[in-house]
Amino acid sequence: MYTAVDHQLMSEALAEAQKALYLSNPNPRVGCVIVKDGQVIGRGHTQRVGGPHAEVQALADVKAKGLDPAGSTVYVTLEPCNHTGRTPPCVDALIEARPAMVIVAMSDPNPLVGGKGLERLKAAGIEVRCGLLEAEAKVLNRGFISRMTRGLPWVRMKIAASLDGKTALPNGQSQWITGPLARADGHHWRAQACAILTGVGTVKEDDPTLNVREVKTERQPWRVIVDSKLETPLHSKVLKQLDQSGVILVCASLDSPVAKEKAAAFEALGIEVIAMANAHGKVDLPKLFQYLAQERHMNEIHVEAGFKLNGSLLREHCVDELLLYYAPFFIGEGIGMANISPLGALDQRQDWQMIDQDRFGSDIRIRLIKP
Amino acid sequence: MYTAVDHQLMSEALAEAQKALYLSNPNPRVGCVIVKDGQVIGRGHTQRVGGPHAEVQALADVKAKGLDPAGSTVYVTLEPCNHTGRTPPCVDALIEARPAMVIVAMSDPNPLVGGKGLERLKAAGIEVRCGLLEAEAKVLNRGFISRMTRGLPWVRMKIAASLDGKTALPNGQSQWITGPLARADGHHWRAQACAILTGVGTVKEDDPTLNVREVKTERQPWRVIVDSKLETPLHSKVLKQLDQSGVILVCASLDSPVAKEKAAAFEALGIEVIAMANAHGKVDLPKLFQYLAQERHMNEIHVEAGFKLNGSLLREHCVDELLLYYAPFFIGEGIGMANISPLGALDQRQDWQMIDQDRFGSDIRIRLIKP
Repeated sequence: MYTAVDHQLMSEALAEAQKALYLSNPNPRVGCVIVKDGQVIGRGHTQRVGGPHAEVQALADVKAKGLDPAGSTVYVTLEPCNHTGRTPPCVDALIEARPAMVIVAMSDPNPLVGGKGLERLKAAGIEVRCGLLEAEAKVLNRGFISRMTRGLPWVRMKIAASLDGKTALPNGQSQWITGPLARADGHHWRAQACAILTGVGTVKEDDPTLNVREVKTERQPWRVIVDSKLETPLHSKVLKQLDQSGVILVCASLDSPVAKEKAAAFEALGIEVIAMANAHGKVDLPKLFQYLAQERHMNEIHVEAGFKLNGSLLREHCVDELLLYYAPFFIGEGIGMANISPLGALDQRQDWQMIDQDRFGSDIRIRLIKP
Repeated sequence: MYTAVDHQLMSEALAEAQKALYLSNPNPRVGCVIVKDGQVIGRGHTQRVGGPHAEVQALADVKAKGLDPAGSTVYVTLEPCNHTGRTPPCVDALIEARPAMVIVAMSDPNPLVGGKGLERLKAAGIEVRCGLLEAEAKVLNRGFISRMTRGLPWVRMKIAASLDGKTALPNGQSQWITGPLARADGHHWRAQACAILTGVGTVKEDDPTLNVREVKTERQPWRVIVDSKLETPLHSKVLKQLDQSGVILVCASLDSPVAKEKAAAFEALGIEVIAMANAHGKVDLPKLFQYLAQERHMNEIHVEAGFKLNGSLLREHCVDELLLYYAPFFIGEGIGMANISPLGALDQRQDWQMIDQDRFGSDIRIRLIKP
């Protein structure tokens, strides 16, 4: 059905979409390539929120060259939008441009709208095909798909440990377990996320900034701190640089006068404080992720937390992907990866599925997802 | 200096040598390919101890075909031996066969004899070259080289763990952490070893057989049990099947009447008992490995032990290679990989060097050596 040339051009559209990896959140990463008479005449990818989508960018590229998109073939990695959001619908721009054909990698993951954009293109007399390199297109937008289909973000937990699974010495020392290449890779994943999530324990012990430094990005993710009792120190580094991105402090309850007073101090610094308690008086983690997806439009959450919060997130089935880095030495005694309840037998375990493994300098990274 | 054809033919000799991987211990794994007029006329690899070496096998192959090796080129992965051991020197057999040239991957690793075989060939008017695919040839005989150059075996420690570095549940349950493909790979490494070493704790808790089952082999490795106080139960599975290979029980001391009595009971079953104490009244592990290499001619020791012995071996710098399998789940609470003294700071760590990583079904294996 599709030719080798089609595959090549959709691959180029996917490469365009990759350029939006750190940029387009919470919009999906979309790439578009426009071809006429065997030549690529325009390329584009989704810009920052409020800026043009991939198709409009690519059409602008065509026009900037003084060319006419009429009769062209458009390769686009996601079904063009059919509704007015912050920008007008891409379907209208495409219909106006009069391409002969639009080839789409995947339809809109929102089951309520999926296919409607394609139908409008067809109704306008444009030939439409869908499904070329669909699997690759889906990987690129795991978080967006998750939000659209499950009402939840894609939650990726990063852990750096020694060969024997220790993330810190008994004294808490944990920085620089992995080397510079693994750390840079970690920032690549941070940069993709809508938010970086951690716990108050990590804030107090390591005082991290949790921003993106090792890779180039135009935007910084939000930072979300799970802090049942609002114990985050006001001078913590993570609470600074609010011009780049916001901080959401999540506590269990704001009912007491003490909690209200603490929240007011954070809010005076420009930090949002929300309360979300479960039956045990702790932060309701599943509900928090629903909130982040549905109210805050977050696609991917990057978790860099410690033993306790990692354990809670795993036990409460909040994690979709593990990003595990192992550094080539033993620590022996120290703090482990995650506080899991002891298994009574091996068959009570939760299995993960390895999806890839890679070396970063002297370290190894393995990635796993829920099977 | 070497042609592409030379590389190809030495690769074939290395593939021959691979066939001796489970077979030739404690002799090195050697392969030989004999080429005349552009045709391979003979192939051979080292047989079981007492049987022919690779060169003699390959020459016999030539003669079995009714061909004459005179004027041929011989590719052999290790310098031909120049001394009479259990079989006559290969150098004599080669000189008699009158090849025009002998190309060798690596010289004899014994610094006392290295090069003498090559010199005798040269003195007999045969052109000799050495060093083609030397690195590959050395990997194949890491243990033999270690024994010849250091007087120590190559010690490979295998550990199967969960993602968080646990090798057993708190209740000790440890079997079937990794899946069938990883287990079969483990047996591939067992089969290569001269001996499989474990501790009395593992014998008592898991009652393993420690023989090779999942891969086909004509010989079984020895089994060595580190058992300071001779507490191995007499009915243990590892003490059986002595027709296939022997068992060496290593205790700290045989001075007391009780120890002598226990030893006699083991010896009545055909089990060797030796004593080797360090200053703390435990088995002297570095001395044990010297003994195994120098007195028992063991090239590679495969360690499958538990938390305590693994820790002792690592702390006493006895381990050359780590073979770590991680299964895709967390255990949380349980028994760790190795009992290491706590580090005071991260810079006190002993670094390893990752050499490869591979997937075996749902598990991952990483291999590391001392840098």
